[in-house]
Amino acid sequence: MNTTYLSTPETRTKLAVFYSDTLLKNVIPFWLTHGLDREHGGVLTALDRDGSLLDTDKSVWFQGRAGWMFATLYNTVERRAEWLEAARSCIEFSRKHCFAPDGKMYYSVTREGKPLRMRRYVYSEAFAAVANAAYAKAAGDARAAEDALKLFSTYLRYSFEPGVMNPKFEPTRPAKGLAPLMICIVTAQELRANLGDVTVSGRTCTEWIDASIAEIQRDFLKSDLQALMEMVAPDGSVIDHIDGRTLNPGHAIECAWFVMHEGALRGDKKLIQLGAKILDWMWARGWDEDCGGVFYFRDVFGRPVQEYWHDMKFWWPHNEAIIATLLAWQITGDEKYARWHQRVHDWSFQHFPDPEHGEWYGYLHRDGSVSQRAKGNLYKGPFHLPRMLWYCSRNALDRGNPPPGKFPG
Amino acid sequence: MNTTYLSTPETRTKLAVFYSDTLLKNVIPFWLTHGLDREHGGVLTALDRDGSLLDTDKSVWFQGRAGWMFATLYNTVERRAEWLEAARSCIEFSRKHCFAPDGKMYYSVTREGKPLRMRRYVYSEAFAAVANAAYAKAAGDARAAEDALKLFSTYLRYSFEPGVMNPKFEPTRPAKGLAPLMICIVTAQELRANLGDVTVSGRTCTEWIDASIAEIQRDFLKSDLQALMEMVAPDGSVIDHIDGRTLNPGHAIECAWFVMHEGALRGDKKLIQLGAKILDWMWARGWDEDCGGVFYFRDVFGRPVQEYWHDMKFWWPHNEAIIATLLAWQITGDEKYARWHQRVHDWSFQHFPDPEHGEWYGYLHRDGSVSQRAKGNLYKGPFHLPRMLWYCSRNALDRGNPPPGKFPG
Repeated sequence: MNTTYLSTPETRTKLAVFYSDTLLKNVIPFWLTHGLDREHGGVLTALDRDGSLLDTDKSVWFQGRAGWMFATLYNTVERRAEWLEAARSCIEFSRKHCFAPDGKMYYSVTREGKPLRMRRYVYSEAFAAVANAAYAKAAGDARAAEDALKLFSTYLRYSFEPGVMNPKFEPTRPAKGLAPLMICIVTAQELRANLGDVTVSGRTCTEWIDASIAEIQRDFLKSDLQALMEMVAPDGSVIDHIDGRTLNPGHAIECAWFVMHEGALRGDKKLIQLGAKILDWMWARGWDEDCGGVFYFRDVFGRPVQEYWHDMKFWWPHNEAIIATLLAWQITGDEKYARWHQRVHDWSFQHFPDPEHGEWYGYLHRDGSVSQRAKGNLYKGPFHLPRMLWYCSRNALDRGNPPPGKFPG
Repeated sequence: MNTTYLSTPETRTKLAVFYSDTLLKNVIPFWLTHGLDREHGGVLTALDRDGSLLDTDKSVWFQGRAGWMFATLYNTVERRAEWLEAARSCIEFSRKHCFAPDGKMYYSVTREGKPLRMRRYVYSEAFAAVANAAYAKAAGDARAAEDALKLFSTYLRYSFEPGVMNPKFEPTRPAKGLAPLMICIVTAQELRANLGDVTVSGRTCTEWIDASIAEIQRDFLKSDLQALMEMVAPDGSVIDHIDGRTLNPGHAIECAWFVMHEGALRGDKKLIQLGAKILDWMWARGWDEDCGGVFYFRDVFGRPVQEYWHDMKFWWPHNEAIIATLLAWQITGDEKYARWHQRVHDWSFQHFPDPEHGEWYGYLHRDGSVSQRAKGNLYKGPFHLPRMLWYCSRNALDRGNPPPGKFPG
């Protein structure tokens, strides 16, 4: 391949328009039309292929994720009243119905807002924090700004203070995960983008980002294995059991772009190199050379993994890989990333979109055929796909290490 | 198809020998050679394709399931010392290492027996109960007989006494599952087969079986939908949400043969008809007419299901369908079941066995190609496959409603 979508200013403009059009004329209208709950407020995500409702139960994660997305479009793309109103609806539903009496957020509630399930972990809080931060900026809502800080503080306490979260395992073999650190980075980045570099639980957002990246680099990044682990022992050693060996390339590639984004914002070459290294290693681990697309799980030593869906192609790792490869090309200028970007862009847009009803399918078999036709559920909704389209539409145009402040979010 | 494997006494004999040979020359030797832990006792199940160890962690379920299988072979096939010793090893490991201080059993432990994970539910107890019952008979071990009763009592208390098991969901939308009733039936059947019709928690085994079948028939069997539900509201109404609509045809077909087995034992035509009806409806729901094999999950209204692996072909639903169709043919004489038996037998033995290293793969794609090469994990070990081979090798020969007492177990 000699030319890529990123080769010339003309092709880059075309690409940016493609992302922007897909976002604003296809994906966002799908969710505004079918997902917004005009009766009870908030967003419904369990939608069938044509947008009809499969399940009225509401994901608490998605009240936050969708609220963040709509408020961010309002803040960064255009001041459309319907986006602000959608964000407000998610925030308000969340405030009214998604908190247990002890202040911890539920995982799922009924359409009307009655509690269904509480889980041990605190991702509901992290997604609500970024939604409140973006909404505070969009609406000038002081309570939302306060709530964003409180929610991030709850997130940090449950995620990093020993003993606060109910343990899933006996203390025999302690372990820690990559996910809480990644979510810490992106939550702090979004709070900072919308509220400034505020202090939460004794550290500024930037300090939380620095501490999280440092821990990832020290304990999860393995040069000898050329891999970013999903789970390690507290001292960073590899846990040689099935769960400890299981890599999630799409997740690690998401981590790669969080780190590169931070590097680009600061003009910090070390961070950019770190993110690019994670991308390089995990692309090699995750890209399916036979069928195309990104595998869901891989064993670090090439052994079988436990999860049945290990070789399926989920929508979101492809969203993350499109962002990461584009960003890596943009800030390093390495043509390899332009080629990878084109590969994952082409495979994704050939297999995931539904040409008839819009949006993307979420779950494909390894060969790219559709496994499940729904457009959303408790895990899929207006987040990964529109975030990718939004991020890439704004970042496809330029090349070369951009000055701090260039990046959204 | 005019003739089937069940058409003549000669073909039936050939089939019984095939099941028996596969059991005794392939599957059991695989687990005795690679699975038995000669160092720490008990059984290891996380084995790669060739039997090499993928993970040293031990499933508590499988200390019970394997202990039951080995003791049952000893009780019903041949008094081989190595089978009794394997059963003893599982029972002893379980006694020493699988109980928490409060008496509840763990879900997984390390190879040496240190606790890894406790779960809310009590299937560890049910599988340990049947292992102890079979081992009590095999070894004349009085403690095992006592433990079997105690374990079943714990199972019943956690499963059916409101408030004993920690709830997974908030009380907003109460629900009950098919699984606890099914496991109650088969556990009571195995206790009765090995210890007589003992009384546990105020009811005889037969009374527990009757009560469980009555509740399944009353609350889970839906004539208007022609389906056996996996989960319903406490009053038996269908819960029209994704989880409530999700059918598990292989699981329901397993229930069908538990009920038919009980009917055959008692010579009870109503139970036989009930089991056959469940089989008829759930075969129609589960059999993949395009690719062959049994789907894992189906929505009762044909909508998308949540679980990613819904169209994969797992080994165990095929084991259950082979048993159920053979048994249905045997006790009803309906040729339809002989044809179904041949279809699921042929598809299974064409796709699941590993001709090089023995045993079966566990996880195939919809089209029958291998998704994951391991022979075992926390869910797959010496249970469903050898149980099917054992049950069918003993029941492939005869036709017509057999007299009570004919059936093993």
